[in-house]
Amino acid sequence: MSTRKQLKLGAIIHGVGGNMSSWKHPDAIVDASVNFKYYKQQAQKAEEGKFDLLFIADGLYINEKSIPHFLNRFEPITILSALAAVTSKIGLVGTLSTSYSEPFTVSRQFSSLDHISSGRAGWNVVTSPLEGSALNYNKKLEEHPDHPKRYRIASEYLQVTKGLWDSWEDDAFVRDKQSGQFFDPQKLHRLDHKGDFFSVQGPLNIGRSKQGRPVIFQAGSSEDGKNLAAKEADAIFTGQPTVDDAKRFYADVKGRAAGFGRNSDEIVVMPGIGPIIGATEEEAERKYQEVANLVTIEEALAYLGRYFEHHDFTQYELDAPFPELGELGKNSFQSTTDRIKQNAKEQGLTLRQVALQAATPRPLFIGTPVQIADRLQAWYESGAADGFIVGSGVPNGLNDFVDFVIPILQERGIYRTEYEADTLRGNLGLPFPTNRYVKEKVTH
Amino acid sequence: MSTRKQLKLGAIIHGVGGNMSSWKHPDAIVDASVNFKYYKQQAQKAEEGKFDLLFIADGLYINEKSIPHFLNRFEPITILSALAAVTSKIGLVGTLSTSYSEPFTVSRQFSSLDHISSGRAGWNVVTSPLEGSALNYNKKLEEHPDHPKRYRIASEYLQVTKGLWDSWEDDAFVRDKQSGQFFDPQKLHRLDHKGDFFSVQGPLNIGRSKQGRPVIFQAGSSEDGKNLAAKEADAIFTGQPTVDDAKRFYADVKGRAAGFGRNSDEIVVMPGIGPIIGATEEEAERKYQEVANLVTIEEALAYLGRYFEHHDFTQYELDAPFPELGELGKNSFQSTTDRIKQNAKEQGLTLRQVALQAATPRPLFIGTPVQIADRLQAWYESGAADGFIVGSGVPNGLNDFVDFVIPILQERGIYRTEYEADTLRGNLGLPFPTNRYVKEKVTH
Repeated sequence: MSTRKQLKLGAIIHGVGGNMSSWKHPDAIVDASVNFKYYKQQAQKAEEGKFDLLFIADGLYINEKSIPHFLNRFEPITILSALAAVTSKIGLVGTLSTSYSEPFTVSRQFSSLDHISSGRAGWNVVTSPLEGSALNYNKKLEEHPDHPKRYRIASEYLQVTKGLWDSWEDDAFVRDKQSGQFFDPQKLHRLDHKGDFFSVQGPLNIGRSKQGRPVIFQAGSSEDGKNLAAKEADAIFTGQPTVDDAKRFYADVKGRAAGFGRNSDEIVVMPGIGPIIGATEEEAERKYQEVANLVTIEEALAYLGRYFEHHDFTQYELDAPFPELGELGKNSFQSTTDRIKQNAKEQGLTLRQVALQAATPRPLFIGTPVQIADRLQAWYESGAADGFIVGSGVPNGLNDFVDFVIPILQERGIYRTEYEADTLRGNLGLPFPTNRYVKEKVTH
Repeated sequence: MSTRKQLKLGAIIHGVGGNMSSWKHPDAIVDASVNFKYYKQQAQKAEEGKFDLLFIADGLYINEKSIPHFLNRFEPITILSALAAVTSKIGLVGTLSTSYSEPFTVSRQFSSLDHISSGRAGWNVVTSPLEGSALNYNKKLEEHPDHPKRYRIASEYLQVTKGLWDSWEDDAFVRDKQSGQFFDPQKLHRLDHKGDFFSVQGPLNIGRSKQGRPVIFQAGSSEDGKNLAAKEADAIFTGQPTVDDAKRFYADVKGRAAGFGRNSDEIVVMPGIGPIIGATEEEAERKYQEVANLVTIEEALAYLGRYFEHHDFTQYELDAPFPELGELGKNSFQSTTDRIKQNAKEQGLTLRQVALQAATPRPLFIGTPVQIADRLQAWYESGAADGFIVGSGVPNGLNDFVDFVIPILQERGIYRTEYEADTLRGNLGLPFPTNRYVKEKVTH
């Protein structure tokens, strides 16, 4: 388990949130995914709750079967930049794919966000699981790189990005009006990277930020994903179905990090949760049933299909055993599709059961505020998590979490009552990354 | 001349602004180019002055000889998004190159900015004049596309972008909780673009904004640039050395627009100016001399070199006639380098004179607030401009413009006292662009 004394929290803002039918809920704000007032309110609520960070997910391909709040939503870099201007302490983390972007542009945009927010930016590095993305990026479908290649690209991409972020040493900009010296040329470094996938000269046209460079998140849970995270990431956003799975994952990536010569405290593991909170257990259960009942079987099948390269599941018998799919799903959301297949086999589930479970799973974190707090604490203290990324299982979910769960965690001394730092890196308890060109370690 | 009744104004925020040595001025904020408080203050000041828009320029390559405020500056998409959250009426226009980006990403980012700002986004389309950009984007120097090819790419790029922005009709999102219909599939359109340079399927994962789509600016003044602007742009940001040049340019592009079957009022021509305002003529002149004297001859030569593919001008005799450069500069800032060469020849200038003039030109718009207002009005009323992009020639330049020049223009009835609309397109007097898939014209 980590030596961190307090748990870390992120809030994922995802339009309406919840399942793909939650927008039909009477309390749902139907245009939430493109409603800036909604994002601003949620961001400020999370900051009121002293959350470490906001998290904005992303995707690069939709079709007419996509989840409603994916069809029409803010792009992460833009919405995070806007939220930077109306918050002051909370971290701002967004997903961006290394398979369909250029490291010079991405380094700049996250660095610029880091400057705008005075050191609160984070980048969740993904490799784009959906093959359809290729169709929007000037490539033939067969050119979508396979899983291992995507991770080799991502790894080199991160080397380039981190290199560009070190273009200028922290004190490179002298700006001495008297002498006329704007910068110290000894502290400007050209990267001159030439690798298998990228050739980038540099330097970057923006300097280091207050937290050195943006915090790197990684979200893949495949072997390749875990190795990339253990080697390069500052934090991991992961989905874990049970506390035992979470413990195994936690020990696994911390061990891998150590294997790469890192201190395992330098990587923060944050499973995603979608809590449903009620004043009583019954109220929480009723809230869950309310959103689960919004999902039709057609919607559930379409949702399931998305994990399997947009496979059409309407061709199968609903109440027959879950079909044999062979390799389908391997090159997409690999760890998720493996788990779905395995559960279906082990538990003898029908297609209907698998689809409904996938579309609107009963959350592990459901109950009264005390019950939720107990479970968070148990995961945290048993070495299953350093913190959590909290989604909204139901409308007003984040508000309830901040109003009712946070005070309990604070009272128990396992969660901050005030921000310790004003950078994301500082609040996450991560060390300041010394510029590679600096001989002596900088103390901040 | 345009039938517009009032002139339009943009404010370019450019770090310290002025010439490349202005940061040495006693009143300059030395870190302005990465100082969010400064940008926010300037944006809010421009909005106080009822400016149509803020303009953020950009570049994709620096080296140790670059202009100080280019070395370390905000990236346009991020800073504009942040400013969207702290302004409510002013347009937000940024430069982004079609030579080193992907149309799907760029369409999304500008559309997302357009949603965040409720219809205030604009994109200044450039093709990247500096060959060094290729070195930061994974390409060999010889792969930087030549001038005509860059414009062919840009033209197709804009077709793709505008197509993606029409993916969803304005009323495509039904969001009917009762029926469970989130969108009308008849109003979702896949682009399926396959052209010479791009192959993009779509649809875009964000809908149309309040102003339909972002406003397109174009800044090139070469033949290719003028044709692209006349065909595709809503507005033109141009540099014009004299009122006669400006009139010729204005008539030229309006004529070309008509040649492409457009109403010439559908394109707004905005020359850039860098006014220096004094309570008296003498004070204005003194302010100019103050910033001009900050420029050393070494700085001026480096500045001049930037227009000519980073040519090293220190190899020539300073007080000899401006050297013969042949084709140098043709593939870079073509119209600017042509003009520099021509002026040097016609006026028999030395290298020193050319360099100092280029680095710190005496602005045309210099004098008392009344003199500045007179000249703006003369340009506007004589068919040289529909409006202006106002830069800061000296520290506090924008503040002085808003406090002293704006009230005169308002008194004369040639400038708004209140925003007419709450979208950029509305304030610029541009028509709402009907979605290509809509049969009947929409009235807004």
